[in-house]
Amino acid sequence: MSPLTLTPIGVIRSPHREAAGAPIQPAYAAAEGRVIVEPAYAEALADLEGFDRIWLLYWFDRARPWMPRVVPYRDTRTHGLFATRAPARPNPVGMSVVRLLRREGRELVVGGIDVLDGTPLLDIKPYVPAWDAWPDARAGWLDARRAAREVADGRFHREE
Amino acid sequence: MSPLTLTPIGVIRSPHREAAGAPIQPAYAAAEGRVIVEPAYAEALADLEGFDRIWLLYWFDRARPWMPRVVPYRDTRTHGLFATRAPARPNPVGMSVVRLLRREGRELVVGGIDVLDGTPLLDIKPYVPAWDAWPDARAGWLDARRAAREVADGRFHREE
Repeated sequence: MSPLTLTPIGVIRSPHREAAGAPIQPAYAAAEGRVIVEPAYAEALADLEGFDRIWLLYWFDRARPWMPRVVPYRDTRTHGLFATRAPARPNPVGMSVVRLLRREGRELVVGGIDVLDGTPLLDIKPYVPAWDAWPDARAGWLDARRAAREVADGRFHREE
Repeated sequence: MSPLTLTPIGVIRSPHREAAGAPIQPAYAAAEGRVIVEPAYAEALADLEGFDRIWLLYWFDRARPWMPRVVPYRDTRTHGLFATRAPARPNPVGMSVVRLLRREGRELVVGGIDVLDGTPLLDIKPYVPAWDAWPDARAGWLDARRAAREVADGRFHREE
């Protein structure tokens, strides 16, 4: 198969300039951010306004090379990478569900952003509870770690 | 920026050989499937077993080129592409949350698969309700279309 190539469709602006100190997930993020879509893709934003939340897919452009086992932010022992949401992955594609506060032309103002400033945007999808919300699902090792850290450090990112 | 290139880490096997007749989302899918990970990535599956559900990220390898507005499966009028989950996207990356039934070495047996057979696998992430489940989020045009179709046709896929 030929290589699978992605084209950034925009950029994510946030107050988080570096991984250390940034929230590890949108659920722990209070910050507002802006999702700025390139003009060629602006028309495709139509009708997003009715959704409370949206998925952002983006490229972890500052992540370290992946490793098969990692010590994730929420534990002190190693887990298989695919059992974590660590950014250093074979295909470093991140997904975050954020609150859609409003649209201003080809910019979306979002709440609860956990993404680093300047991150390349790959896709926007609507959040649909009937498809995406499974509140009772067991969450493996994470179920015992609910009180663990909500803020990142530099472990999964390259030095500046 | 240099091109962003993805490397398939495995393949998704399912009973769905073509888009027409396949479920449009895992929530409407009863079928079992198999997620087969390449040997180089097998170690990274450790500790997934405790999770009821997992996210699959994959490449919509049979999707048509994207258009800014589409008539999605669940409506009879057009919506902006980013307000839909249609597979024909600027970056054709799909995400599905499926039930993890069991692991057999480097294969995961999953329930509720809506993905076409042979789809390239890009990533596996654990489903974490505290981060991913927002059951009360408004879902825009989709909220009025709850009784609409649960099965796809060929509109977003190339002819065989």
